[in-house]
Amino acid sequence: MKVQRPKGTVDILPADSDSWEKVEKIARDFFKSANYREIRTPSFENYEVFSRSSGESSDVVEKEMYDFNDKGGRHIALRPEGTAGVVRAYVENKLYGPDVVKPFNVYYIDNTFRYERPQAGRQREFHQIGVESFGSNSPLSDVETIMMGHDLLAELGVKNYELHINTLGNEQVRKDYHDALVNYFTPLKDQLSEDSQRRLSMNPLRILDSKAEEDKQFLPDAPRIVDYLDEDSKKNFETITDMLEQLGINYVLDDDLVRGLDYYTGVIFEFEVEDKNLWESATTILGGGRYNHLVEEFDGPETPAVGFGIGEERLMLVLKEQNPALFEDEGIDFFITNIGAGTEMKTVEIARSLRKQGFKAQYDVDQKKLKQQFRKADRVHAKFVITLGAKELENGVLNIKRLADGKTLDLSLEDLNDMKSVMKKIED
Amino acid sequence: MKVQRPKGTVDILPADSDSWEKVEKIARDFFKSANYREIRTPSFENYEVFSRSSGESSDVVEKEMYDFNDKGGRHIALRPEGTAGVVRAYVENKLYGPDVVKPFNVYYIDNTFRYERPQAGRQREFHQIGVESFGSNSPLSDVETIMMGHDLLAELGVKNYELHINTLGNEQVRKDYHDALVNYFTPLKDQLSEDSQRRLSMNPLRILDSKAEEDKQFLPDAPRIVDYLDEDSKKNFETITDMLEQLGINYVLDDDLVRGLDYYTGVIFEFEVEDKNLWESATTILGGGRYNHLVEEFDGPETPAVGFGIGEERLMLVLKEQNPALFEDEGIDFFITNIGAGTEMKTVEIARSLRKQGFKAQYDVDQKKLKQQFRKADRVHAKFVITLGAKELENGVLNIKRLADGKTLDLSLEDLNDMKSVMKKIED
Repeated sequence: MKVQRPKGTVDILPADSDSWEKVEKIARDFFKSANYREIRTPSFENYEVFSRSSGESSDVVEKEMYDFNDKGGRHIALRPEGTAGVVRAYVENKLYGPDVVKPFNVYYIDNTFRYERPQAGRQREFHQIGVESFGSNSPLSDVETIMMGHDLLAELGVKNYELHINTLGNEQVRKDYHDALVNYFTPLKDQLSEDSQRRLSMNPLRILDSKAEEDKQFLPDAPRIVDYLDEDSKKNFETITDMLEQLGINYVLDDDLVRGLDYYTGVIFEFEVEDKNLWESATTILGGGRYNHLVEEFDGPETPAVGFGIGEERLMLVLKEQNPALFEDEGIDFFITNIGAGTEMKTVEIARSLRKQGFKAQYDVDQKKLKQQFRKADRVHAKFVITLGAKELENGVLNIKRLADGKTLDLSLEDLNDMKSVMKKIED
Repeated sequence: MKVQRPKGTVDILPADSDSWEKVEKIARDFFKSANYREIRTPSFENYEVFSRSSGESSDVVEKEMYDFNDKGGRHIALRPEGTAGVVRAYVENKLYGPDVVKPFNVYYIDNTFRYERPQAGRQREFHQIGVESFGSNSPLSDVETIMMGHDLLAELGVKNYELHINTLGNEQVRKDYHDALVNYFTPLKDQLSEDSQRRLSMNPLRILDSKAEEDKQFLPDAPRIVDYLDEDSKKNFETITDMLEQLGINYVLDDDLVRGLDYYTGVIFEFEVEDKNLWESATTILGGGRYNHLVEEFDGPETPAVGFGIGEERLMLVLKEQNPALFEDEGIDFFITNIGAGTEMKTVEIARSLRKQGFKAQYDVDQKKLKQQFRKADRVHAKFVITLGAKELENGVLNIKRLADGKTLDLSLEDLNDMKSVMKKIED
């Protein structure tokens, strides 16, 4: 019997891993440029962390979580998303204290886990890139978060993305709207899907995200949150959209937008990508919003917060279509071929020196025939081949050849210690 | 009730995460310089992947594994180390095929999981940085692997490390030695620890690693592998140590060195660090060796292989002592303070432009008073403060101030679009 990877997981092999790494480096550098710093929380948390944040009745918690008892009988779960652990860490490490500059701005690049039906861009172990900002309730904080999502996608080379934006209003608004939904759906209860019948008592907002045919027929006439917004919420939302306009960030007011998780308050947003090569309809690759009560849910002090998350698997699918340069094999700088007695260790030393100088250098550990070494140099996309024979070693003069055009140059062994100068010479 | 992180896990917060990231970047760049490319395997595998590779009777598999049944009833486990998943991926993706250049050289930076008693540098979720090279049985391949371990530690700024090296010989040697150990320990069986009594039938080699007092008394007189080595194994080992000498890599022949996992064959090695501020005695931070049969264990073709792994938590402990520069807060380049009507969005735009130019730039999303903005600039270790008031906006002239010495300069709004030139001017 062959041992295989678990269903819904993938291996990211060297051909692809380079591009994952490039994307993550772009994201890291981008976040750092805005003084967002990394936070790393554990891959698993106590079960309660996720049941509190996502809601006990949510699909994630009910059906999709990798939860189990550890050897000490603790009920733990692999994280299904990145925010809950960050909020838990914020409270547990007392980052709300006066020693920490506010807003407290962090980013994460997390592996996350959901037991779902695997499909293109959706695995059981997947990855989220996200930011969270704790401590500011200013509209400028919402705008900065949305702008960062926008500018990061641009920086990565994503094309045709569209910002959809909506607001859930404050607590009173959500309560009024909640009641309106209950009033609307209760007479229809028997005709709703089983899931939505349960949602009706737990979180009727989630019925609006339902994909079930039974439910869909009732959605167009359901109450809309815009009709329940109070003046403050409206004004706050207008301030945000005004600022986005001043920054030249286009958006679509999307009354249908209701984020799937329980914890959002205030502004919510998604960036959708259209790409007919990938999907029939526009698909969300980044989503986020304001969540002003989650820190309190974790027994922390009242703390406004806003953030977003990107599904990295989907992002990679999009980038493969839209920014193929990220997926090109860069190759290496030097392959050192050698032949003849006594050249072996000098070859290793040359490679070692070139590596220290910041170049990518390789040689043939199998010490095959010269022809095969050249073949290998070609296969690893070496830009230059340096050849060392017994005679070259004796004379202290080597040959370097650029594979692209066959241009060659003679080098002394000392020249190899300052390869940047040699490179300048050969580029002339 | 407060929600806390699970026992034995940690949060890596911004103050520390910067240095983790720096260390990982150094490692990545180093591996890439030798044309080792990244491989990412799932965080969990089918249970059998680890029971095959580490041995059903090993402590890791028996006591320390986070294994559980997923919602589909599959027996899966969080990886306790990095190599098994890479070997599984090598076989499953047919990387032994002719399309893949040999040796197939990869590195990984993995989160790994063991249910152990937590202590300094040992968590239940921890991290391993490692390399694996598949397809070469050449001594030069062993030497390259050891040299990479050596040079990486140097590159990271680790001091006082010592290479310990030994060989386990070929299969016949291991068999002969195995029999000798069984013959030696069997008459002593009743006096051995319970663990070692079990090891005696499963893997007597592991008794030599025992920390139990009952066992320790019998270890000095136990048979030594050096007395069982055949001529080929001895010669191969000599070739390797000769090459290390030629490369100026010091080593200690360490007859006591027996790596804890089942799968090693041939050369094995560890880098130990002495640091009285951290540990009473020398402690291993990097270990590896040759494992020529593991690919076959996973039903792949006969494939020689060699690799090493670094415990990242321990490495970070060492670096904090030995290379404190990695732990310094770099701060940001610019904090843009603003005051007065109409300056808000221009401030955001300036920050956005500076970020695009590759600088770290921040402003006050809370739009507090100027004094508090300056205080914040100080707290985030900004190198420069740019001030924008209503008058500055009107005149198009701003002031930039270097906080270290108070040096100031006047700038036009246009100058901000080419901040690199301004930086040159201010450095003069």
